[in-house]
Amino acid sequence: MDKNHLLKLLEAVAGGHMSAEDGAEKLQHIAYEDITYAHIDHHRSLRKGFPEVIFGEGKTAAQIVGIMDKMMDQEDIILVTRTAQQKADVVLSHFPTSVYHADARMIVLELNPVPITGRGLILIISAGTSDIPVAREAYLTAIAMGNTVDTIFDVGVSGIHRLLNHTALISQATVVVVVAGMEGALPSVVAGMVDRPVIAVPTSIGYGVNLGGVTALFAMLNSCSSNVAVVNIDNGFGAGYMAAMINRD
Amino acid sequence: MDKNHLLKLLEAVAGGHMSAEDGAEKLQHIAYEDITYAHIDHHRSLRKGFPEVIFGEGKTAAQIVGIMDKMMDQEDIILVTRTAQQKADVVLSHFPTSVYHADARMIVLELNPVPITGRGLILIISAGTSDIPVAREAYLTAIAMGNTVDTIFDVGVSGIHRLLNHTALISQATVVVVVAGMEGALPSVVAGMVDRPVIAVPTSIGYGVNLGGVTALFAMLNSCSSNVAVVNIDNGFGAGYMAAMINRD
Amino acid sequence: MDKNHLLKLLEAVAGGHMSAEDGAEKLQHIAYEDITYAHIDHHRSLRKGFPEVIFGEGKTAAQIVGIMDKMMDQEDIILVTRTAQQKADVVLSHFPTSVYHADARMIVLELNPVPITGRGLILIISAGTSDIPVAREAYLTAIAMGNTVDTIFDVGVSGIHRLLNHTALISQATVVVVVAGMEGALPSVVAGMVDRPVIAVPTSIGYGVNLGGVTALFAMLNSCSSNVAVVNIDNGFGAGYMAAMINRD
Amino acid sequence: MDKNHLLKLLEAVAGGHMSAEDGAEKLQHIAYEDITYAHIDHHRSLRKGFPEVIFGEGKTAAQIVGIMDKMMDQEDIILVTRTAQQKADVVLSHFPTSVYHADARMIVLELNPVPITGRGLILIISAGTSDIPVAREAYLTAIAMGNTVDTIFDVGVSGIHRLLNHTALISQATVVVVVAGMEGALPSVVAGMVDRPVIAVPTSIGYGVNLGGVTALFAMLNSCSSNVAVVNIDNGFGAGYMAAMINRD
Amino acid sequence: MDKNHLLKLLEAVAGGHMSAEDGAEKLQHIAYEDITYAHIDHHRSLRKGFPEVIFGEGKTAAQIVGIMDKMMDQEDIILVTRTAQQKADVVLSHFPTSVYHADARMIVLELNPVPITGRGLILIISAGTSDIPVAREAYLTAIAMGNTVDTIFDVGVSGIHRLLNHTALISQATVVVVVAGMEGALPSVVAGMVDRPVIAVPTSIGYGVNLGGVTALFAMLNSCSSNVAVVNIDNGFGAGYMAAMINRD
Amino acid sequence: MDKNHLLKLLEAVAGGHMSAEDGAEKLQHIAYEDITYAHIDHHRSLRKGFPEVIFGEGKTAAQIVGIMDKMMDQEDIILVTRTAQQKADVVLSHFPTSVYHADARMIVLELNPVPITGRGLILIISAGTSDIPVAREAYLTAIAMGNTVDTIFDVGVSGIHRLLNHTALISQATVVVVVAGMEGALPSVVAGMVDRPVIAVPTSIGYGVNLGGVTALFAMLNSCSSNVAVVNIDNGFGAGYMAAMINRD
Amino acid sequence: MDKNHLLKLLEAVAGGHMSAEDGAEKLQHIAYEDITYAHIDHHRSLRKGFPEVIFGEGKTAAQIVGIMDKMMDQEDIILVTRTAQQKADVVLSHFPTSVYHADARMIVLELNPVPITGRGLILIISAGTSDIPVAREAYLTAIAMGNTVDTIFDVGVSGIHRLLNHTALISQATVVVVVAGMEGALPSVVAGMVDRPVIAVPTSIGYGVNLGGVTALFAMLNSCSSNVAVVNIDNGFGAGYMAAMINRD
Amino acid sequence: MDKNHLLKLLEAVAGGHMSAEDGAEKLQHIAYEDITYAHIDHHRSLRKGFPEVIFGEGKTAAQIVGIMDKMMDQEDIILVTRTAQQKADVVLSHFPTSVYHADARMIVLELNPVPITGRGLILIISAGTSDIPVAREAYLTAIAMGNTVDTIFDVGVSGIHRLLNHTALISQATVVVVVAGMEGALPSVVAGMVDRPVIAVPTSIGYGVNLGGVTALFAMLNSCSSNVAVVNIDNGFGAGYMAAMINRD
Repeated sequence: MDKNHLLKLLEAVAGGHMSAEDGAEKLQHIAYEDITYAHIDHHRSLRKGFPEVIFGEGKTAAQIVGIMDKMMDQEDIILVTRTAQQKADVVLSHFPTSVYHADARMIVLELNPVPITGRGLILIISAGTSDIPVAREAYLTAIAMGNTVDTIFDVGVSGIHRLLNHTALISQATVVVVVAGMEGALPSVVAGMVDRPVIAVPTSIGYGVNLGGVTALFAMLNSCSSNVAVVNIDNGFGAGYMAAMINRD
Repeated sequence: MDKNHLLKLLEAVAGGHMSAEDGAEKLQHIAYEDITYAHIDHHRSLRKGFPEVIFGEGKTAAQIVGIMDKMMDQEDIILVTRTAQQKADVVLSHFPTSVYHADARMIVLELNPVPITGRGLILIISAGTSDIPVAREAYLTAIAMGNTVDTIFDVGVSGIHRLLNHTALISQATVVVVVAGMEGALPSVVAGMVDRPVIAVPTSIGYGVNLGGVTALFAMLNSCSSNVAVVNIDNGFGAGYMAAMINRD
Repeated sequence: MDKNHLLKLLEAVAGGHMSAEDGAEKLQHIAYEDITYAHIDHHRSLRKGFPEVIFGEGKTAAQIVGIMDKMMDQEDIILVTRTAQQKADVVLSHFPTSVYHADARMIVLELNPVPITGRGLILIISAGTSDIPVAREAYLTAIAMGNTVDTIFDVGVSGIHRLLNHTALISQATVVVVVAGMEGALPSVVAGMVDRPVIAVPTSIGYGVNLGGVTALFAMLNSCSSNVAVVNIDNGFGAGYMAAMINRD
Repeated sequence: MDKNHLLKLLEAVAGGHMSAEDGAEKLQHIAYEDITYAHIDHHRSLRKGFPEVIFGEGKTAAQIVGIMDKMMDQEDIILVTRTAQQKADVVLSHFPTSVYHADARMIVLELNPVPITGRGLILIISAGTSDIPVAREAYLTAIAMGNTVDTIFDVGVSGIHRLLNHTALISQATVVVVVAGMEGALPSVVAGMVDRPVIAVPTSIGYGVNLGGVTALFAMLNSCSSNVAVVNIDNGFGAGYMAAMINRD
Repeated sequence: MDKNHLLKLLEAVAGGHMSAEDGAEKLQHIAYEDITYAHIDHHRSLRKGFPEVIFGEGKTAAQIVGIMDKMMDQEDIILVTRTAQQKADVVLSHFPTSVYHADARMIVLELNPVPITGRGLILIISAGTSDIPVAREAYLTAIAMGNTVDTIFDVGVSGIHRLLNHTALISQATVVVVVAGMEGALPSVVAGMVDRPVIAVPTSIGYGVNLGGVTALFAMLNSCSSNVAVVNIDNGFGAGYMAAMINRD
Repeated sequence: MDKNHLLKLLEAVAGGHMSAEDGAEKLQHIAYEDITYAHIDHHRSLRKGFPEVIFGEGKTAAQIVGIMDKMMDQEDIILVTRTAQQKADVVLSHFPTSVYHADARMIVLELNPVPITGRGLILIISAGTSDIPVAREAYLTAIAMGNTVDTIFDVGVSGIHRLLNHTALISQATVVVVVAGMEGALPSVVAGMVDRPVIAVPTSIGYGVNLGGVTALFAMLNSCSSNVAVVNIDNGFGAGYMAAMINRD
Repeated sequence: MDKNHLLKLLEAVAGGHMSAEDGAEKLQHIAYEDITYAHIDHHRSLRKGFPEVIFGEGKTAAQIVGIMDKMMDQEDIILVTRTAQQKADVVLSHFPTSVYHADARMIVLELNPVPITGRGLILIISAGTSDIPVAREAYLTAIAMGNTVDTIFDVGVSGIHRLLNHTALISQATVVVVVAGMEGALPSVVAGMVDRPVIAVPTSIGYGVNLGGVTALFAMLNSCSSNVAVVNIDNGFGAGYMAAMINRD
Repeated sequence: MDKNHLLKLLEAVAGGHMSAEDGAEKLQHIAYEDITYAHIDHHRSLRKGFPEVIFGEGKTAAQIVGIMDKMMDQEDIILVTRTAQQKADVVLSHFPTSVYHADARMIVLELNPVPITGRGLILIISAGTSDIPVAREAYLTAIAMGNTVDTIFDVGVSGIHRLLNHTALISQATVVVVVAGMEGALPSVVAGMVDRPVIAVPTSIGYGVNLGGVTALFAMLNSCSSNVAVVNIDNGFGAGYMAAMINRD
């Protein structure tokens, strides 16, 4: 429930379209709603401008559906991340208007159209083919939060000219998300090309001493470019979310 | 040399105040200037809107002075980070108008006043007394880059009410930098209170399995709040720089 | 076999209800009982006030049943931890009065009612939905050991007000168990609110540099609150056991 | 300032021995006191029953003296941990009644006698000669918090009979603190002998793959005895504090 | 092929029971025998007194059978370690006199009776039920190499009296192998009881920061007893082999 | 005090050369002797055949002298390991017959001649010049424990012929100690040449990812030769002690 | 597309065998070709003398086929690494002339014969049977890049004579690739025998503290021989590629 | 002693300029020369084409002088690496014609002019100012081994154009050494520009999770470019040596 929702409810009461009793009952649920397996923090939309996102991993389809049911009345959009196909099928059968993005393993249920509110362009760049799922998670998250988003995929540093070809687009972004596995070098190079914040996302792509992404993560934290901050390994959602925060007016 | 500098130079030539030859010679130095121990990237101010910052650790006082000498003609402000008192004394004797901030181990040489250009407030919060030097480095960097900056120090999570007392100020920030050592819990709590990006800075403060700050770093990367991105351990400079980038219009 | 059991046996002999021979034979088994795959330490109840608990992981259902058979005559309650559903089904078919708690993956066979002997309240707090299984293991263990236990679930630090709403209950506890994964920040915050011992339980919940719970563990060991001690990752049983020890008169 | 202090102040006002104005001014300082380098949390004694302890490492002698000055009026006892001899000399010259315990690197300033309030005996056991400083820190902390404390030093597991000789004393403790470096095996053995909580303190004593105490820490967290919880490496203070919390009525 | 085998072959030639040509051909194979996937080091029995042991993990049943076929003519006994049941079934169908020990996951094919040649008793002690497979691997290896071997299982340090009950047997051993997971404390305690070499075997048993056995390994390497040397995690075979080497006259 | 000492004391009493009272008083001290900073385990010589060795690191010269004073009456030889020159000077001024071996940083005080009791030859091999101090510590320890010891130094695997030149000597050893830093490859090669136990000692020699000796340690634990067991990094003393145990009849 | 391809195309246009339009269209694709899931870097053959190699892991069979389709027109040979049998079957059904090497998990599609262009002999040596797949990957890669390649397999350091038997062949190589798991000692020994560059490949073969190959990797990086450089764990392809680069005229 | 030296000696004997006795005595020393603290491997020059290099770290000036004395008669050039200024002063006073390179901490004693024998150009590239010492060590080593060497310093990836400006020079190299600390990204970018082998040298430059160079090392091992092999952290000498081996005809 964001401020707009709250305003509408109060206006409804003010305008006599809703009884004070009904309004009170609805408001009662705003703070936290307790279902068996989760405290749903409805107050969050008010406080943070975006509803809680459901982390699908480790939740059953039934639990996801249950939480979505509670959120539906009060939110404009619901995101479920890290959801396998099979689980998603169950969720989609309950919410036929929701969409499953298999590449990003993400469910999006848009209840009301999300207007573009971000002040500029968010650009998502990824290094290799295998990094695309994480990049797509960032992309869908930033879109869902009301931003203009563009992407450049598969421009790793071993063929630096592929990246330099996109200099014009890169210089237009307000914030850049850079996704890379293996040696995690791409964010440093991109950050050296722009005067904007770069959110670096290490991925677990690679083998041997990639250490499941820790090497890319540490490389990014040691970037010789100063306009780089980093999120957890494979955390495309977090990068998209952070980019949206930065892109807020 | 930022765009303004370049413009003035060209206007000087255009207005006949500088010969074309002199202008050409000056421009020749813009790209990169090679002294024995460093390629100075003058082009950087043009590309990134802020001059290269001198990382003082591992450079001699003479090397620092040498680099500053080359930068002076073309920059409005010069920062030297991670400089011990003794080394700073030598630098200050060469540049009497420069200021040494002992707590942040940083030298600031302001050649021209830095106007406030940031779009909102940058807020720096730190957890413990020992984290203050890192927080101060972030503070001075953000100030040097033309921002309004405020601070709240010593509000660790073991006495959560100390933090909650500052809710009003926290909610006014455009971007928040949170500095913490030990268990690194503060950024998660702060990020849960705002709808703005939080840059988390782990410090090496603690002992035993603080692992020189790695524990705080990993805790911050695992934050249950999504609006958090992280920089390297003790990297107050990077956090201030990143915050300034985010605070750019 | 606890002191009470021993006393009864001796009284039975004293009162002529059991022959000295039978008594001797029964006592002979008290120290250690050797079956093919385990030394059962019956003496343990006498020494430690609670029978050995069967760690189900890595034991076959048949082995678990075999050990329970030997323990049944001499103990009031038997706990089996870390037991998958399938294995539990076999055990329950042998001991129909035993109960399987699927969420905590734990079997409880209560042979005699366990009286409340703890001196105060044990409170179990958990951070996220996914931490509940570990919290439940602590809960069931503390209950089985004769304590009054209460719980607060899903009150992570990214919405600190959810926790503060429970201040009254928290202040009533004699000992608090706090279960958290990801950044492991909750125990520090809770410990800052009470003047009682806090047992912190890191969980393996999270991804990337949560390192299977090591990050949460290290964060907890670095807590800026002093009234915190820590058990192994996902060790809900150990936390419940330790809390019961602390709650002993 | 603990409850007793507060009560006395209010009684002084009530009895006319202190003007309301003076009382108000004194109370004003209770919550938090802000000096240049620290927020002193006076409210803490009220909330947690023991004043904040000054962590001496990384603070100058002047800073320690400054903080002690502010605390003196309101506390009965002040502890300063991890203080080197030279720094302690400065502190003692300001507070001649304070005592420096060189072995534990700790300063104790007892302003009012600390009555014994703990419900039972706290026993501190250490494995090797080199572990004694950490054990002493735990000892002095528990004493300062109003407990009866006893010690058994130098009873490592390579000569198990040395430990078994003390069985009688060990069985009288309400809580046992066990300090050990190297392989960290002692807490498991001690915990197997008692039905009381054991707080294990790993030390950094050893070399090679002792990893500065991490090996002892991990061994203790993997204890095959369930009544063990662990604090950070060399954290004798924390262990003594935790033991005092457990020993509280 | 050990020295005895070689001697017999030469005597056969000397005695006219084998032609020089046949003898030469047989000897030709002694050094190394090359099959597609392995250099079989027949010379090894001569050099080291025991044939190469087949490490079953990562080899197909067909490869194991192939190597055994080549070794059969020249060795008295063949060991295959780390072999799953299914693979073992195939091997046993080819060598019906071989025996599969499921608990140790080991195949033993005794072609000629192995005489006892060790100078004293090898004793294998293990800490927990789950450590038995590794202990059994050590046991079978030492037996196969011609030693008198005895065992004491399930005598972990949390009930130290279980171990002390076996003092008499322990003091008779020439070399002791101690197998333990979790905190790995048992070797230190055992080594403190004897004046004989102790070979410590860490196992991967445990969870959380047992780190797959690394914690037990490091604890053993830090043993406060000096008569301890260590082998790799779960390396029961190596411990049995090393014990046999030590027990050699 | 070893068995011989005990026997002599009892014979002295039996023969009237010592009063029963004096004998009793002397025996009273046998078990453990408590001085301020250490429990001296006199019983150890009886139990383990060799007196406790003083680990010099972290003890003051005064403490070392104090412990030696107590041990002198009852032991034939006293070893002090890891003692810097300066500390050794103090000790030698108290015990002029003691000898300081600077290369091994070890003090040896031989009170009675140590007869050769080991059953065979102990051979110490080291890889590089820098590994010699650790090898010397092993050498002196094995000598002190009554063994015939020989050495081969500076025969690293990068010039394998240097090692092969010593094949004859190597094959005569009953037990071989191999000391190596860097990649720790030497024990595998040596162990492949003999049918005797090899005790491998990793050293901290090297840089970068030698990780202070952990790389050599892990390499040795993964040796493709089975007759290798390993002690802690730089633990020359432990290797010499273990070799002496193995060389015992 | 290598220089030869390009030359032929231009000659075809020059000779009137291809229209300028067709030539232009073909050239248009040279730089980068964008299909849904990958930027194919055709320019690479020109720049690096060898086409991009398809890393099969994490790609579907359909994706592999798609990329091969695009490459076919312009390359002489196509390699696909890390491809499981099942996936390979699909690929081979599309490209019947391609060959699947099951041991190296590699597909080779030779469209035109690859002439030998390397200046000398590349020799691949491996330590154990289980290291052969990685060695074979290096072998096939070096062959595909136009080199004379020979191999010596299963010559680990525990039987050093097996290696020394091959001294003549080893001394003929221009570059040596050495593949080893476990303790990773073989490259040091081989490098000590030659005055040529050695590329060391650690494998993940082993268990316990082999740490999935990290131990072998670190051992190789610490080699006491200076003519050793290292590639990632199990990276047989990279080693073969690097060897081919070194063997280039 | 290289082949040339040997030849001259034999010719001297053949020509009657040296008696057979003198020749024999000189040859006697060829294999290995044993001084107290080192086996000097004179045979090495014959086997490997370059004399053993003295690793100065951990050796006294006297030891270095002693080894140089023995080598002087038989070698054309002597290198001493990792030598601090003070130690170097002593060495230079003994060998006045030797040169100390303070930046590389290296002593070079050229006894006979080293002719250029390498087949092409070795190029040394470094990322930051602080990486220059390691790059200089590689440079001096390659020069000493008879190569044409060029350098490009301070061209890190945060200003990629600085590197691209040198494309022409880079494409002329036969082998490229790339030295970088922090995120270690430079080798990947350089390797993508050439069809020649790249030797990557991670440096310990950086802070926080640079982990003393391990992050750069791991990044380099995970390079998305295939023509990269890696040496140990800060091992400029090894990289120069390896490059010289590759550049050998």
